[in-house]
Amino acid sequence: MVAFTPEPLDLKSIDTIRALAADVVAKANSGHPGAPMGLAAAAHVLWSRFLKANPKDSKWFARDRFVLSNGCALQYIILHLLGYKLTLDDLKAFRQVDSKTPGHPEYHHTDGVEVTTGPLGQGFSNAVGFAIAEAHLAATFNKEGFNIVDNYTYVFLGDGCLMEGVASEAASIAGHQRLGKLIAIYDDNHITIDGDTNVAFTEDVLKRFEAYGWHVAEVKNGNSNYEGIYNAIIEAQKVKDKPSLIKLETIIGYGSKQQGTHGVHGSPLKKDDIVQLKQAIGFPPEESFFVPREVYDLYGKIAEKGAFAQSKWEALFVEYGKKFPNEYAELSRRIKGELPQGWEQKLPVYKVGDPAVASRKLSETVLTAIHGTLPELFGGSADLTGSNLTRVKNDVDFQPPSSGLGNHAGRYFRYGVREHGMGAILNGLSAYGAILPYGGTFFNFVSYAAGAVRLAALSGHQVIWVATHDSIGLGEDGPTHQPVETAIHFRATPNLQVWRPADGNETSAAYLVAINSRTTPSILCLSRQNLPQLEGSTIAKAAKGGYVLHEVEGKEDLTIVSTGSEVSIVVEAAGKLSSDGLKIRVVSLPSWEIFDAQSQEYRLSVLRSGAPILSVEAYSTIGWERYSHEQFGLKGWGSSGPYDKVYAKFGLTGSNIAELGKKTIEFYRKKGGEVVSPLIKAF
Amino acid sequence: MVAFTPEPLDLKSIDTIRALAADVVAKANSGHPGAPMGLAAAAHVLWSRFLKANPKDSKWFARDRFVLSNGCALQYIILHLLGYKLTLDDLKAFRQVDSKTPGHPEYHHTDGVEVTTGPLGQGFSNAVGFAIAEAHLAATFNKEGFNIVDNYTYVFLGDGCLMEGVASEAASIAGHQRLGKLIAIYDDNHITIDGDTNVAFTEDVLKRFEAYGWHVAEVKNGNSNYEGIYNAIIEAQKVKDKPSLIKLETIIGYGSKQQGTHGVHGSPLKKDDIVQLKQAIGFPPEESFFVPREVYDLYGKIAEKGAFAQSKWEALFVEYGKKFPNEYAELSRRIKGELPQGWEQKLPVYKVGDPAVASRKLSETVLTAIHGTLPELFGGSADLTGSNLTRVKNDVDFQPPSSGLGNHAGRYFRYGVREHGMGAILNGLSAYGAILPYGGTFFNFVSYAAGAVRLAALSGHQVIWVATHDSIGLGEDGPTHQPVETAIHFRATPNLQVWRPADGNETSAAYLVAINSRTTPSILCLSRQNLPQLEGSTIAKAAKGGYVLHEVEGKEDLTIVSTGSEVSIVVEAAGKLSSDGLKIRVVSLPSWEIFDAQSQEYRLSVLRSGAPILSVEAYSTIGWERYSHEQFGLKGWGSSGPYDKVYAKFGLTGSNIAELGKKTIEFYRKKGGEVVSPLIKAF
Repeated sequence: MVAFTPEPLDLKSIDTIRALAADVVAKANSGHPGAPMGLAAAAHVLWSRFLKANPKDSKWFARDRFVLSNGCALQYIILHLLGYKLTLDDLKAFRQVDSKTPGHPEYHHTDGVEVTTGPLGQGFSNAVGFAIAEAHLAATFNKEGFNIVDNYTYVFLGDGCLMEGVASEAASIAGHQRLGKLIAIYDDNHITIDGDTNVAFTEDVLKRFEAYGWHVAEVKNGNSNYEGIYNAIIEAQKVKDKPSLIKLETIIGYGSKQQGTHGVHGSPLKKDDIVQLKQAIGFPPEESFFVPREVYDLYGKIAEKGAFAQSKWEALFVEYGKKFPNEYAELSRRIKGELPQGWEQKLPVYKVGDPAVASRKLSETVLTAIHGTLPELFGGSADLTGSNLTRVKNDVDFQPPSSGLGNHAGRYFRYGVREHGMGAILNGLSAYGAILPYGGTFFNFVSYAAGAVRLAALSGHQVIWVATHDSIGLGEDGPTHQPVETAIHFRATPNLQVWRPADGNETSAAYLVAINSRTTPSILCLSRQNLPQLEGSTIAKAAKGGYVLHEVEGKEDLTIVSTGSEVSIVVEAAGKLSSDGLKIRVVSLPSWEIFDAQSQEYRLSVLRSGAPILSVEAYSTIGWERYSHEQFGLKGWGSSGPYDKVYAKFGLTGSNIAELGKKTIEFYRKKGGEVVSPLIKAF
Repeated sequence: MVAFTPEPLDLKSIDTIRALAADVVAKANSGHPGAPMGLAAAAHVLWSRFLKANPKDSKWFARDRFVLSNGCALQYIILHLLGYKLTLDDLKAFRQVDSKTPGHPEYHHTDGVEVTTGPLGQGFSNAVGFAIAEAHLAATFNKEGFNIVDNYTYVFLGDGCLMEGVASEAASIAGHQRLGKLIAIYDDNHITIDGDTNVAFTEDVLKRFEAYGWHVAEVKNGNSNYEGIYNAIIEAQKVKDKPSLIKLETIIGYGSKQQGTHGVHGSPLKKDDIVQLKQAIGFPPEESFFVPREVYDLYGKIAEKGAFAQSKWEALFVEYGKKFPNEYAELSRRIKGELPQGWEQKLPVYKVGDPAVASRKLSETVLTAIHGTLPELFGGSADLTGSNLTRVKNDVDFQPPSSGLGNHAGRYFRYGVREHGMGAILNGLSAYGAILPYGGTFFNFVSYAAGAVRLAALSGHQVIWVATHDSIGLGEDGPTHQPVETAIHFRATPNLQVWRPADGNETSAAYLVAINSRTTPSILCLSRQNLPQLEGSTIAKAAKGGYVLHEVEGKEDLTIVSTGSEVSIVVEAAGKLSSDGLKIRVVSLPSWEIFDAQSQEYRLSVLRSGAPILSVEAYSTIGWERYSHEQFGLKGWGSSGPYDKVYAKFGLTGSNIAELGKKTIEFYRKKGGEVVSPLIKAF
């Protein structure tokens, strides 16, 4: 064991973090001073003695990852002291509109923030994703003497994160996968918003994590036991085949007169309390945002150490490139986030007359076709592999080699029945870089992961959800498994593509756009039941999110717009109406988000004025008013039964839709006047 | 330890369950035969020797509760054999449209089904809710010699349930609360859809549950170790201060040629396999749905025992009524699901000029006012008590008495940071009966519990979500906490009331309708920021879901419709437009669902034809096209900052809305023709 004795400057640095935490939250008059004050010592020991990162190049690939799962101002303070692109003025603008320091750290928003945290349980689970990504890329690219991919993932988390089910799911996965380079530090401060953790959280956390297969350790007096913190991390690093959880006993708001109470959890310290805090540590008591020059200097040296580590790594990587030019080229491309030239050529193309196939199967065909060309694809399923069809033939499982079931170079992940954990891990895999993760479950159960999906969209993580069994078309499993409200939930989420392809070409288009959208998550809603290959569909047209599948000569009587498995039913209805001499256009709208991103001119050419538009989809109709004058769908829950009988029960048949089409035409004839496209708005 | 030796008829009964499971799934050509076949012995031992229930009166209040968390055909088979309202023909109609035997058991749909299961993790967590309800009502109503409330909750669950985070959350709560009468039997069959549990689930389950504070036990050879099952349950009953988890080692699909493989998990047995199964147990090999007469007789006797237990309990309850008439009257009323006469009189009423108050605070005022009158109200929060304002002053915490923090008669529950677990527990509390549960969290984090909210709506559990901090109006916490997509998600969910009250009277109305809606869950979206008391609002009007807050004389130029915290901003905008000589109606629409339930005549009197309608809400605008011609809201995510600055950033100000109002009026003037209400549809 290496002895560790803090220098006086270490103590001053820790005091600086505490004082800044008090000041930052007081200036904003909002935020959480307690956790940063309690975690200041651990943060300083970790960053000054362990963390390998270069503040001048926050995206350096080989850096250690640090996640503050109990997202708070501590993150900003550390980043500022180290010289990331975050000034003292940014700290002063904490929680102000358009600042770099929003209430909770956001990925893609603030330099050095690895993932968005604040919603509890997410950051910890993202960190599991980081550790998986590291293990996978290391197993894939490292060579004897060239540990190109070789970093730790450190995560701080609190009681709240440990209570959230998403973190339980991720923790069980991490233990199973033996992720030795994941080191979590649990801030055991005994305080949550409701007061003492005794009111709701009395489980034995360390025992629970041991049950998951983790190495666990405990550090008492975590506010000043620098050596204990240091040694626990050293020990954790030595355990190579298990993730580590270090329980750090701290006093929340350490240094405040209210320390150890929930009074310092989510409210600023009072002015006199801040004064006494600064007096106690020898800081000018009336000066806010005071940072001793020598503390900046110390952190500057830490930053230089990181820059030096990067330069050493870069030299090694160049050497690696000489010996292993293919691997070098491949990893370089993936780190840059570029896709291989012409990968799209692999996408399957279909023509009318090709067999009817379920779109979950069409998805499998796409994955099979592109799997070799896009080695960054890293798949998985929440225990529905055979249903989601997410596993390409001969794929290797990502498993600890000791399991005998695969290895960490494997590209297929068994998430177990853990949708939320999977969602948060997918986010972490994407944020790590060089990996394009996808995960499968039934569409209905993407809702279990709503917390993670939302953060993928907010953060811009490219994650693909293979969401099969996407409607009442799943049949027998019944309403407990049949989504009704799910599509509109995710369509209403900004920066999230929901795709509901109607056939093979549209499925290829969905993958095309989802894979090319590097900062947007996608949900692909895929059918269990077979779908015919449609006349008029092409990848290029579907890639616009919406297009005219069937055009008429002259002025139409009606346009019917639909998605996914209902498009072929609508085509049948249009056929019936045509035999009655009516002119019916059919529009397929597989992705609202992508359609909305087209020019208004294009959009109006698809959903044009002049005749009514009727929408048809096997979901709640809410939201379709944006694209249609009349809407048909489900008024309530689905039903358990063979899928064709369920469709018939709800009137989703060619003949019923033809009837509704007639009613629509009749209604607008009677009404008179011009029928204006719903896309034409006042502002 | 009582010795237990099965009679030959016990074995025949178990064989019958297995054969029926094979037949039921084969007939449907869909379903899960493996789990019922593996669990047949445990089910028989439990129901024949322990379970106190009366099949002729499935709602008898004092019954033991049984939850099949891994929801499958086993539930229907047992209910049929016992003589619940489920015929052999119902079994034959398994997974057929409109049958009593949908793919997964549904509460309110099939006699004897205690909660809807199938979505994994939910049933187990509902069972925790049952055990809480039992402990609470027992502590509240039982008297020396009168254990009126005294039942066990038994739950069967599989690997899938144990992997789901929602179950982890609920399990930790159950351990903390020392729920001694909860007995869970874990079907450890080592098989999930993806194959052997080794691929994803290698944690030490029993150790984990010990860490949560559970009593744990293990039974080997669970397919034939009847005595082991029996004794484990007896032992579990003896442990009064801990919930129990019995790990039952079983072979999935026991008796099938494919037993022990995932081939029997979710697919029917092949014909020859069923034949050999029946030959092996001495059943006519070609006959389907064969039930020996003597098995019906045995189950009939079990049922009689249940009926006798009920009659004994009823006699005891009558005695109780003589000694404790008030408690008797109160409990009787609550069991019947009736509300106290005139409780609504307690609802606070406001008038213009009363102080502006945040609707979360108005909610607290309502709860305080009705708390004494409605003792069935059982509140709580997911560690946001001081923010949600869900705890009425001097409320007692529901806590194990040994904690010194409260007792089980307490009506306030500390859920910890466990939204999904809370949601599923709320459902269980409601399904138990005699309790009206509510739970608080930020509106954004109701999404973490989406899986449970959906089942509340599908099942008709009366559960009230106190969802505070309901928009960008929460300010500093920022976009990670600001819902944008959340309202439309839940508005699109059938049988779910979303309320977004604009002031005090509307908050009272929301509670009025939510509490009177006995089979519908509600989400009350409540502001962090203060809201003025509006001119024109009344409880009666708001209770219609939507109403004209401000009417004009003659024909209006514009109607603006809004909800919650934006209504007062719209009123301000209307004022500005009025000073410009325009006639502006203002409509408040606190609940779409309740408004939609009004007559078309009423609805058209509120959102009438003749002038354009503009909607304003601080969420995604998707869905508002149903009620308005033009929509204003958030185009993307929110922002972190003081709430008024955030509102200004997004144009949610009186002056900007007045501008948009003018644009709307202008646009429709130019367009010409009649402006028709969006509520008028073709079919």
